[in-house]
Amino acid sequence: MNLGGIGADLRCHCIQTESKPIGRHIQKIQLIPASSHCSETEIIATLKQTGHEVCLDANAPWVKKVIAKMLAKARKR
Amino acid sequence: MNLGGIGADLRCHCIQTESKPIGRHIQKIQLIPASSHCSETEIIATLKQTGHEVCLDANAPWVKKVIAKMLAKARKR
Repeated sequence: MNLGGIGADLRCHCIQTESKPIGRHIQKIQLIPASSHCSETEIIATLKQTGHEVCLDANAPWVKKVIAKMLAKARKR
Repeated sequence: MNLGGIGADLRCHCIQTESKPIGRHIQKIQLIPASSHCSETEIIATLKQTGHEVCLDANAPWVKKVIAKMLAKARKR
């Protein structure tokens, strides 16, 4: 899914979001906060095998679960 | 703060975390889940002006607030 050159232009990156739960394929997640370029936070996952980037829907239960699980396993100082 | 060449080696990226609340300086946040290379999720923020990367402590109240606020403003499908 082509995200229209992430970071290349100044609009929102995400056109559509991935509906299938792909939690175990995720190498990392980027949270890009709303800004003058895009009025909504965008959640972009990078996939392990391919390195492809897919947009996630913050409202999808599986996305909330993946992020909560990650934060629960984060380094505590 | 040099993070030891993000992604270059295969250990944890973060050596220390940023204690000062820097929410408004954050351009984006990366959540890197625990893996065979690093047993904990790492939270790495990229700063707006400098593009520098700093590690965040998932337990710090301001970090939780920044992430929650981002997720609340995310695109809903």
